[in-house]
Amino acid sequence: MTAPLYEARPGTPDTQQCMRRRNLSRVMHSVAAEGPLSRAAVARHIGLTRAAVSTLVDELIRLGLIEELGPQRPGRVGRPGSALVASRRGPAGVGAEVGVDHLAACVVDLSGEIRARAEVRVANRGREPGPVLGELAVLIRQVTDQAEQEGLRPSGLAVAVPGLVARDTHTVVRASNLDWHDTDISALLPTDLPLTVDNEANFGALAELWLGNDTPADFLHVSAEIGIGAALVVDGRLLRGTRGFAGELGHVPVRPEGPVCPCGGRGCVEQYAGEEAVLRAAGIGPGEDRVGLLAERAAEGDKDVRRALRGAGSALGVALTGAVNLLDPRAVVLGGALSRLAPWLLPTLERELKRRTATPADGVMVSRLGPDGPLLGAAHSAVRAVLDDPVGVGG
Amino acid sequence: MTAPLYEARPGTPDTQQCMRRRNLSRVMHSVAAEGPLSRAAVARHIGLTRAAVSTLVDELIRLGLIEELGPQRPGRVGRPGSALVASRRGPAGVGAEVGVDHLAACVVDLSGEIRARAEVRVANRGREPGPVLGELAVLIRQVTDQAEQEGLRPSGLAVAVPGLVARDTHTVVRASNLDWHDTDISALLPTDLPLTVDNEANFGALAELWLGNDTPADFLHVSAEIGIGAALVVDGRLLRGTRGFAGELGHVPVRPEGPVCPCGGRGCVEQYAGEEAVLRAAGIGPGEDRVGLLAERAAEGDKDVRRALRGAGSALGVALTGAVNLLDPRAVVLGGALSRLAPWLLPTLERELKRRTATPADGVMVSRLGPDGPLLGAAHSAVRAVLDDPVGVGG
Repeated sequence: MTAPLYEARPGTPDTQQCMRRRNLSRVMHSVAAEGPLSRAAVARHIGLTRAAVSTLVDELIRLGLIEELGPQRPGRVGRPGSALVASRRGPAGVGAEVGVDHLAACVVDLSGEIRARAEVRVANRGREPGPVLGELAVLIRQVTDQAEQEGLRPSGLAVAVPGLVARDTHTVVRASNLDWHDTDISALLPTDLPLTVDNEANFGALAELWLGNDTPADFLHVSAEIGIGAALVVDGRLLRGTRGFAGELGHVPVRPEGPVCPCGGRGCVEQYAGEEAVLRAAGIGPGEDRVGLLAERAAEGDKDVRRALRGAGSALGVALTGAVNLLDPRAVVLGGALSRLAPWLLPTLERELKRRTATPADGVMVSRLGPDGPLLGAAHSAVRAVLDDPVGVGG
Repeated sequence: MTAPLYEARPGTPDTQQCMRRRNLSRVMHSVAAEGPLSRAAVARHIGLTRAAVSTLVDELIRLGLIEELGPQRPGRVGRPGSALVASRRGPAGVGAEVGVDHLAACVVDLSGEIRARAEVRVANRGREPGPVLGELAVLIRQVTDQAEQEGLRPSGLAVAVPGLVARDTHTVVRASNLDWHDTDISALLPTDLPLTVDNEANFGALAELWLGNDTPADFLHVSAEIGIGAALVVDGRLLRGTRGFAGELGHVPVRPEGPVCPCGGRGCVEQYAGEEAVLRAAGIGPGEDRVGLLAERAAEGDKDVRRALRGAGSALGVALTGAVNLLDPRAVVLGGALSRLAPWLLPTLERELKRRTATPADGVMVSRLGPDGPLLGAAHSAVRAVLDDPVGVGG
């Protein structure tokens, strides 16, 4: 997996200072991912001399980003190395999530451990952004207070939202299932922390990349809560698109003259495989946790539900054929609510893919993070900002 | 435009040596793109000190990659700077192209000037790869001999083919319109030069990126000779896909139950907008330069031809809607044979895009390189290998 390291901006010259920052980041990533490690092991991992690594480690210890556990394995021959770990009292990343049906926040430390977490079920559809973000702020305060009591220093806040976020801004351009438009999160969610806002599908894909088992560095992550979203990871990096709108799988046309979609198009895959469409086809009315109900009925062998899920799988397969032809990813990963329905979606989905295109080498995988992906991806993105540039962000 | 500079492999440490090679590359790119330039101007361009740049320039002069033109603008106050240009007698890139109806080769010098070019019309469909590549070798020898007589040193050969090329190999996995399968170009095209083989759509897109006017660094390049191909450029880099198969726009399904396609799928866009499909819909039989004939008849107002092109534009619009939703490029660029038909394809293509998705910021652009794109992209890719790593490749 390729770590997105600190980089000089394109066009700027390469200096000793840039080089040192990149190497500090390499040491930090290595210790956070693989620690406890001796200095010698870090040197082997990243291919620098023991002396160079020692200087870098000393700076990271001074910054409070790395801790020494003291001499390790004293029974072995030779001078014992002092084991290094990412600091448990250093900077930490705060993740938060606005869902259609819930709000959540958590704090993750430099080693990736969740140190505090809070979540509430709440129907946010159609609510004004102000009160929703007010409630989210309460959850965020709760988890950051808890983390600070344990000696952590929250260093960044990342918020996942179910909508399109304009690239490099805090503005939700459109979140159809909340009915939010052009909503500037930073204006409604006061915080002293550096703030990042991104689409839940993007954070879900990053979580899969960073935390998934055997997830390749090139994949298409498909997620669904109410809408259908996707995110593309290429060479270990998220492909965001010029406006930040990449991954709009839900509006790929499956039948150009199909039913009208609120997006203005016709026959978008969301009209066949979105939650509303599937519930309608399965004859299930409104209520709580309807995806859970679908999974339950499908498991019981309900014919209407199974037919509805076969149809959804087939439509997803056609849309994914286009995506696989264009992107040639190593795998397709089903995440979010979709992952719970995978057993009944996959057969028709894979059949369409197989007969229409060269199936990706690693095929269609099912996320093990499921609905936790976006929140974990958000918190870890704030942690990785520290690992990527320990001096600039963590210092 | 972001230059793909020499990079240390991921996971390897950053050293003084890497840094020096990157800075040599920056100087080389700057002089090749903007020369003649004084040392002071280069220093301003890339943000290093005049002293640092002088050392780098001296090394590039010693390697024969940069030449001094002698003192410039002697009428001005102060010590005149000696203007630097990319060497006209240094390394050069050789490009070659296997087309369905032609073969071509050319040599491009470090400043981007075409110094030799040769082309023959020949019907290659269904011919064995051996004789075709034998004829291509004759053209390559012809242009390299001519370049060497002018004091150039060919330093790399890049070959564009109308088919899928397995990533980082010389093997054409499938070129349907030549009927070639698993063809190892390096075995049939003996050369002493470092060889690269890639899909014509990829080289066409790179030509657009490097040579186009106002081409953004993020775009989807659509090209057609006989088949329909595409290539994605993201942040100034080609997105190749894990197997090298990205950009297969031709087999994006437009109508899932549409006509059977030789790829095994149904209703692929090539069945509606590929050359064969358009000629059939327009009632035009076999013959030479049928795209030219289409353009001519469309210009004359032929109703059948115009209807066929409207239908093709509409199918392309639906397939591109999916691509734009997934990738959010800054522009769609129509290249290859398509660019000649743009006036009659664009209205329906743009109508579908507009009603189905947020049209890219720069809209749909028409390539000015047209059918020259792949050959120029191939030659320039060999030139840029020198600019990207002057010591390793050019030295």
